[in-house]
Amino acid sequence: MPRTARPKIRLYTDADLSPGGVISATEPQAHYLLHVMRMAGGGDVCLFNGRDGEWRASVTVPAKRRADFVVGARLRDQAVEPDVWLAFAPVKRLEYLAEKATELGAGALLPVLTRHTDVTRVNIERLRANAVEAAEQCERLSVPQVHPLQTFDAFVNTWPADRLLYVLDETGAGTAILEAMEQTQKPCGFLVGPEGGFAQSELDALKQLSSARNVSLGPRILRAETAALAALACWQALSGDWRASNREG
Amino acid sequence: MPRTARPKIRLYTDADLSPGGVISATEPQAHYLLHVMRMAGGGDVCLFNGRDGEWRASVTVPAKRRADFVVGARLRDQAVEPDVWLAFAPVKRLEYLAEKATELGAGALLPVLTRHTDVTRVNIERLRANAVEAAEQCERLSVPQVHPLQTFDAFVNTWPADRLLYVLDETGAGTAILEAMEQTQKPCGFLVGPEGGFAQSELDALKQLSSARNVSLGPRILRAETAALAALACWQALSGDWRASNREG
Repeated sequence: MPRTARPKIRLYTDADLSPGGVISATEPQAHYLLHVMRMAGGGDVCLFNGRDGEWRASVTVPAKRRADFVVGARLRDQAVEPDVWLAFAPVKRLEYLAEKATELGAGALLPVLTRHTDVTRVNIERLRANAVEAAEQCERLSVPQVHPLQTFDAFVNTWPADRLLYVLDETGAGTAILEAMEQTQKPCGFLVGPEGGFAQSELDALKQLSSARNVSLGPRILRAETAALAALACWQALSGDWRASNREG
Repeated sequence: MPRTARPKIRLYTDADLSPGGVISATEPQAHYLLHVMRMAGGGDVCLFNGRDGEWRASVTVPAKRRADFVVGARLRDQAVEPDVWLAFAPVKRLEYLAEKATELGAGALLPVLTRHTDVTRVNIERLRANAVEAAEQCERLSVPQVHPLQTFDAFVNTWPADRLLYVLDETGAGTAILEAMEQTQKPCGFLVGPEGGFAQSELDALKQLSSARNVSLGPRILRAETAALAALACWQALSGDWRASNREG
């Protein structure tokens, strides 16, 4: 492989990235590089932190079981990404939801405890790790922000007034998604309920939100995670960076 | 539960459905009804076969470990469904792909062996069982037809000339999906390649198909199954039964 090819391994770091900087790999990163990928003899990776773009970095091994990154040249500039959030009642296959939502460009993941939510405990650290891994693999330059689990009431009370909220209404009463969505770059988010659906009191509370619009995804009953991913895909296609005209860089 | 409510259990059957007909449950269905759902005392289910609509049926127990369905009234007429196929290089999480594609209304699933396909064996019976189960749960009136695994060459040579083929081109060279798709009810299908991408010779062969159009799903590198589901969602939203105007019944 010529040295100019972009390294295949991409890793997320919290650290600032600038030329010549030296960053310590986390323990799992060092394990992955040295033992899974057997890079003890050195090699290059891509690093990104969600702020400074993507950088080439050389792996060095300062001590047994440790790895450092020596930052080289910038490969890509940080770009402004479409601003779409995903709020969801936790489902059983949360790992899958986090992975797919990251691939589909969600900027934030907000687990919400609704009346009929089956899954009431969420491992936020694990959800974040799923999102980091998916971001590394899909060549994103950022990682979705994972919010702590909150109650439905707290969610409704703190939703930003200037952010559209598309509610995935499984009763079928919502507007067809492409008709409901604005073809704008305005910040927005989707809310998907639990398998058991929203409680009537929750639907009523959502109606009070001036930024909320009920959206329908057709006649079949979609699992919560299918609905979330389908909605994100439709949004990226209509209003996000899947439109050539909306893409930076 | 009042007797007029629609039964919660939905089951697919190969048999014809007409009032008063008696149908033997399959062995797994009998096990599910009698031992999992404990319906030894009888009860109602919904039956569908992809041809005759959806019917209420009473469960009877003619012998130990056996169950029969006595068909009652029709609950829903069979409707014409959007005609979209999904062709794919088999991926590791095929069960998930079959489930989601069924929820998203794919009419046929076509596994295709491409040059860079990692997974070279597909359990077609299992794939079909995944599709049946998903159809039962998502309230579809049909089950996607699962085709046998075929080579890429056979796939290209037998693709119907009058069916649009949207190729999910991971090189990014395709047209943005909402621009590439025709907002028509014309039969179509999507082809998604393996994680390793299509071989150049495969992309060249696809170019020779007059019905093929390359489609892009934005700047991030999607997993094959994410791309397939995202594309189906966009298609249903633009041209399928997620548009209120395209819905029957």
